[in-house]
Amino acid sequence: MSSGKRIVIAVGGNALVQRHHPLDAAPQQVNVALAAAAIAGLAKCNDLIVTHGNGPQVGMLAIETAADTTLGAAYPLDALVAETQGLIGYWLAQALHNELGPETPIVALVTRALVSLDDAAFASPAKFIGATYTKAAALEAEPTLGWQVRQDGDAWRRVVPSPEPIAILETAVIRQLVEARTIVICGGGGGVPVIMDEQGRLHGVEAVVDKDVTSALLAEAIGADMLLLLTDADAVLLDFGTTDEQPILRATPEELRRREFPAGSMGPKVDAACRFVERTGRVAAIGALTQAERIMAGDAGTIITATGQYP
Amino acid sequence: MSSGKRIVIAVGGNALVQRHHPLDAAPQQVNVALAAAAIAGLAKCNDLIVTHGNGPQVGMLAIETAADTTLGAAYPLDALVAETQGLIGYWLAQALHNELGPETPIVALVTRALVSLDDAAFASPAKFIGATYTKAAALEAEPTLGWQVRQDGDAWRRVVPSPEPIAILETAVIRQLVEARTIVICGGGGGVPVIMDEQGRLHGVEAVVDKDVTSALLAEAIGADMLLLLTDADAVLLDFGTTDEQPILRATPEELRRREFPAGSMGPKVDAACRFVERTGRVAAIGALTQAERIMAGDAGTIITATGQYP
Repeated sequence: MSSGKRIVIAVGGNALVQRHHPLDAAPQQVNVALAAAAIAGLAKCNDLIVTHGNGPQVGMLAIETAADTTLGAAYPLDALVAETQGLIGYWLAQALHNELGPETPIVALVTRALVSLDDAAFASPAKFIGATYTKAAALEAEPTLGWQVRQDGDAWRRVVPSPEPIAILETAVIRQLVEARTIVICGGGGGVPVIMDEQGRLHGVEAVVDKDVTSALLAEAIGADMLLLLTDADAVLLDFGTTDEQPILRATPEELRRREFPAGSMGPKVDAACRFVERTGRVAAIGALTQAERIMAGDAGTIITATGQYP
Repeated sequence: MSSGKRIVIAVGGNALVQRHHPLDAAPQQVNVALAAAAIAGLAKCNDLIVTHGNGPQVGMLAIETAADTTLGAAYPLDALVAETQGLIGYWLAQALHNELGPETPIVALVTRALVSLDDAAFASPAKFIGATYTKAAALEAEPTLGWQVRQDGDAWRRVVPSPEPIAILETAVIRQLVEARTIVICGGGGGVPVIMDEQGRLHGVEAVVDKDVTSALLAEAIGADMLLLLTDADAVLLDFGTTDEQPILRATPEELRRREFPAGSMGPKVDAACRFVERTGRVAAIGALTQAERIMAGDAGTIITATGQYP
């Protein structure tokens, strides 16, 4: 087995859940199995660190805990993110095992992302999570559940702060496992958001961290050769939504920084990919989960490098 | 820092939840902090592997998912156990960090326990989980939720199979982390129960594994020097519930095997502790979480060794 490259692969939450379908466990496990099959080939000669989204799942758990009348208070978001890391981490570890066999060590970790209460995101929550509501239902939930809500297209949804991750607290452990050739599943949902007080003690906070930004930070911290942001779109599109739209195949961070991308979907991915390339001079790519191997080969997706060339 | 002993510490679910109190997150985190404070002293000169129960929490999540009307089917137990590993693993990792500071690496892992469908437990589910019900409510839940229910004292509760763990699938990773002096939190709720099919593929099953049995198996597999089963009782009692009851301070497995202990509480702990001593010749102990350091010193709890002597 060649030592190959060290690759951080971020699997989008939307790659695991079909839009507008119920969040039942069984179809998600089918999708997780498809995701594992799509990236398993890369595990044969590379070291993989797999991160994943959790938006739909954490939204579901938030609604379930809020509806639990035996509780005095709903579980906070940090606890719910941790639950989704257990859930999706288990599914991914099991599905990768079923693709790769028992000889490949795989482990899913609970991962925390350090954030700061000074982050401007806490003053203006902007990340949508969970189900959509009518305006009336959303405005009713605001005082009763302690949520903040905002309009999202035609519907209303809960918004929570999405602060910048400052550090991934499990970085040293992840690095150590990767160096021992273990596939590590981590950073789920961007990591459990925690703050550090003046005594150095950690406390969970009501926030969610962007999983692509966390993946970029983690990739930089563990010296990854490549950051692969996988989603349900084939590539970043130029002139998205117009008759002129076309995929961007190669780009430098500067070229992408000059353009605007949709804030709710491709924007954060482009930003995370550009940051990784700007800070490390290494390679980032954005593309479809099902084309992971083709993206690595340079035959699909949007590949971002300092020179705009790949390979 | 002396290399000391390698100790598997099992923290009982009842040590994290106050009986007959709501399962709110905040008081559990207070109890987790107390648990972390109780065992932190042992981390200073020993290598710790911390396992934990999840009975109350998995019961709560089972009820919440069953009540979620947006789902076609409730989440299965394997998924819910994984969620509790994320939740409690996060709380324990954070609380231990807050006791020990940033220099001590700590990580919580999703852990799976391999079981067999040939295990007799699948034919006669006997492990109680979750809330108590009236007989009428329990018998109504049986067909509507697909549960099996049985009488537990004055109330009725759900019962699920509790098969024997055959192997802990993350054993090699746990061993590697421990050898690198990382505190590992694992085996939560006895591990996510999975079976292996004829093609070697793994599948989750509707069961829960006893966390003390899993802890004993794990302690044996990673070559632990000591297995410490911590609960809310000070020691194993002789003549429990009579006016003659008294704590057992030292015992051999043979001495304990000759007696009967309550099936719902001390029985499985005694069995797990005896097994570890019988198979390894090393030391097991059962006692109060708050007395962890005194137990290690030989000044509290019930200590089980091949000779009945300690230290």
